[in-house]
Amino acid sequence: MRSLEDHRAAALALAAPLPAVEVTLDEADGMVLADDLRTDEPLPRWDNSAMDGYAVRHADVAALPVTLRVVADLPAGSADEPVVVPGSAARIMTGAPVPAGADTIVPVELTDAGTTTVLIRDAPAAGTHLRRAGEDAVPGDVVVAAGTLLGPAAVAAVASLGHPTVRVHRRPRVAVVSTGDELVPPGTPLRRGQIPDSNSWLLAAAVREAGGVAVRIGPVPDDVDTLRDLLTGLDVDAIVTSGGVSVGAYDVVKAALIDQPDVEFVAVAVQPGKPQGLGRLPGGTPIYTLPGNPVSSFASFEMFVRPAILRMRGLRDVERPTLLAVADDDWTTPPGRAQLMPVRWVGPDRVARATARGSGSHLVARLALAEGLAVIPAETSRVAAGDRLTVLRVSP
Amino acid sequence: MRSLEDHRAAALALAAPLPAVEVTLDEADGMVLADDLRTDEPLPRWDNSAMDGYAVRHADVAALPVTLRVVADLPAGSADEPVVVPGSAARIMTGAPVPAGADTIVPVELTDAGTTTVLIRDAPAAGTHLRRAGEDAVPGDVVVAAGTLLGPAAVAAVASLGHPTVRVHRRPRVAVVSTGDELVPPGTPLRRGQIPDSNSWLLAAAVREAGGVAVRIGPVPDDVDTLRDLLTGLDVDAIVTSGGVSVGAYDVVKAALIDQPDVEFVAVAVQPGKPQGLGRLPGGTPIYTLPGNPVSSFASFEMFVRPAILRMRGLRDVERPTLLAVADDDWTTPPGRAQLMPVRWVGPDRVARATARGSGSHLVARLALAEGLAVIPAETSRVAAGDRLTVLRVSP
Repeated sequence: MRSLEDHRAAALALAAPLPAVEVTLDEADGMVLADDLRTDEPLPRWDNSAMDGYAVRHADVAALPVTLRVVADLPAGSADEPVVVPGSAARIMTGAPVPAGADTIVPVELTDAGTTTVLIRDAPAAGTHLRRAGEDAVPGDVVVAAGTLLGPAAVAAVASLGHPTVRVHRRPRVAVVSTGDELVPPGTPLRRGQIPDSNSWLLAAAVREAGGVAVRIGPVPDDVDTLRDLLTGLDVDAIVTSGGVSVGAYDVVKAALIDQPDVEFVAVAVQPGKPQGLGRLPGGTPIYTLPGNPVSSFASFEMFVRPAILRMRGLRDVERPTLLAVADDDWTTPPGRAQLMPVRWVGPDRVARATARGSGSHLVARLALAEGLAVIPAETSRVAAGDRLTVLRVSP
Repeated sequence: MRSLEDHRAAALALAAPLPAVEVTLDEADGMVLADDLRTDEPLPRWDNSAMDGYAVRHADVAALPVTLRVVADLPAGSADEPVVVPGSAARIMTGAPVPAGADTIVPVELTDAGTTTVLIRDAPAAGTHLRRAGEDAVPGDVVVAAGTLLGPAAVAAVASLGHPTVRVHRRPRVAVVSTGDELVPPGTPLRRGQIPDSNSWLLAAAVREAGGVAVRIGPVPDDVDTLRDLLTGLDVDAIVTSGGVSVGAYDVVKAALIDQPDVEFVAVAVQPGKPQGLGRLPGGTPIYTLPGNPVSSFASFEMFVRPAILRMRGLRDVERPTLLAVADDDWTTPPGRAQLMPVRWVGPDRVARATARGSGSHLVARLALAEGLAVIPAETSRVAAGDRLTVLRVSP
């Protein structure tokens, strides 16, 4: 059996950052910057006022109180370029460029707020309340680095550089295909043996949560030729299937892809999620074939597909942050296989099995309680209450 | 001055969960369930096989090896209802209902995989590899509770209950309006005194990150009547403005709203973000007027607006998870005011100021480095290297 770590590496190796596209700033958040973004100008562009008040020459306010002539009124956005000569001041609002001659801003609260003359009652030290040109960034600085996930603050920084558009990695379009003759769309009356498809929704939501664009297809019946035509005809960046990869007589995904030279089916030393397939279709599209039990699909996506989607988006760190938590009770784990156990928090650093009523990988209702996935190494054969576990936080 | 905590409470009190709407499962993820979702049926609906193999009567496999007659072939999805009589077995795939008479599943790996007769070489204990009806959920169980944020697993649970649609709280439409005569759209050539608007993009991205739908408007010039008409004419669930709320001579937002009986302008004991306004417009729409410096807008949104958006979405827990981290160096904080300091991680539990090159709330380029916001209580007047800080993780 292939180790969990080796299969993770093989899954990730199929993914590469997608080409850059240019998007507007309204579309940019949540995407990943393709190139280092440098500034050509100092930021701020000019010395400007940090307060609403008066721009003065500090020598004029050495002895207080003093009355100065107001020679200009400078709201933010003013293009005026007055000169503050001895004995004068310019009324100035936050953000307005500091006029020539002035070296200090006196906050309005320390004055009588006059508009033709102003009485200065108190004054700060020389140079106070000025924002200096370049104190945020100087020409040549990388303001936002390639590979940065553009959150609100990064988008604002791009805007402040004066860019109406930005080059980011395209989001991957990922097809998710659930297979199985027993599956019907939710809402369809069930006859004996049928169950509602849930995996196509599970995986589509997981693709979106990972920042991809989901193309949900399913449920697809267990017909080998139909499935092969479907999979090889998709125009997407990656494909994820669920079901049909085990040792059963009707394992349709395996049957549809077994002749593909660049697709392999392997047993991975993990529970759930032992039967796995991955590789490339003839056009080069990466495909990940996950087992069909919901908990298996969920855990397999988390382990093998999510990092690949993050890589395609251009992210460098494709791992979830891990937490340490203490197990709330005892359970056994399969010998020689890693275990992926859905857990929920029952204390600040304490987790219990989310699916504790049963133990199987089919427990889709219980899975809704999962907030984390505990990753138990293959060397561990039993978890005891109080053991420290490594947990990936998977709740949204 | 009003305390940070009191202003947070006032901001949150303006928000209530929005009405429920019915959406398809393709639209449901990221939304919040409006009603408890119970199951009317046991899940699984019937005893079914956990393995690909043979359904047998355990008494028939007491002595091994044994050859049994194969009386049925049950793929998943089969509606057949055969009876397994003594001396017989049904070939069965994972998920197929267990036929009458059978009480145990023998995995295919323990057999010769025959289709007319099957040689059983080994057998598990009685009752093994059966998934029992109701072991995931029984009728009446709440499978997904009202107030649950629908992630992939919860959406899958809804699907498994057979619901093609689900009732969720509507996402809030939040208008963001940046004000200031000095602001021009990014890409516009700058004359003296002008800067590119960045706050409307900052706040729009922050609204989306909080799960709202952003209606970005801006930059808007400092014209009181125009702004009042704009703000009172918006058909949205909440409004956020930036700029124009301080003590300056041109504080347009304050001037436009000062006559509104249900809007108040207050000084909050926090740095940055001291000048704040909030309340309701005549139609009842909550409005939050934030100061205009980018770091102030960012921190104010995080403190006052984000929890309100989460509440409108129907979430009960509207707080970010907090982390404890150690300060990497020393800085002073304003006496009697809480401080919100953008920080970045410089070690697993260690943070440095993101804007360390300067100290002002205008440092929009540096702000792009922020991964967290340290919340320093008003009682603290100085942070020393090694101090433990409470940090909100704000990076996406």
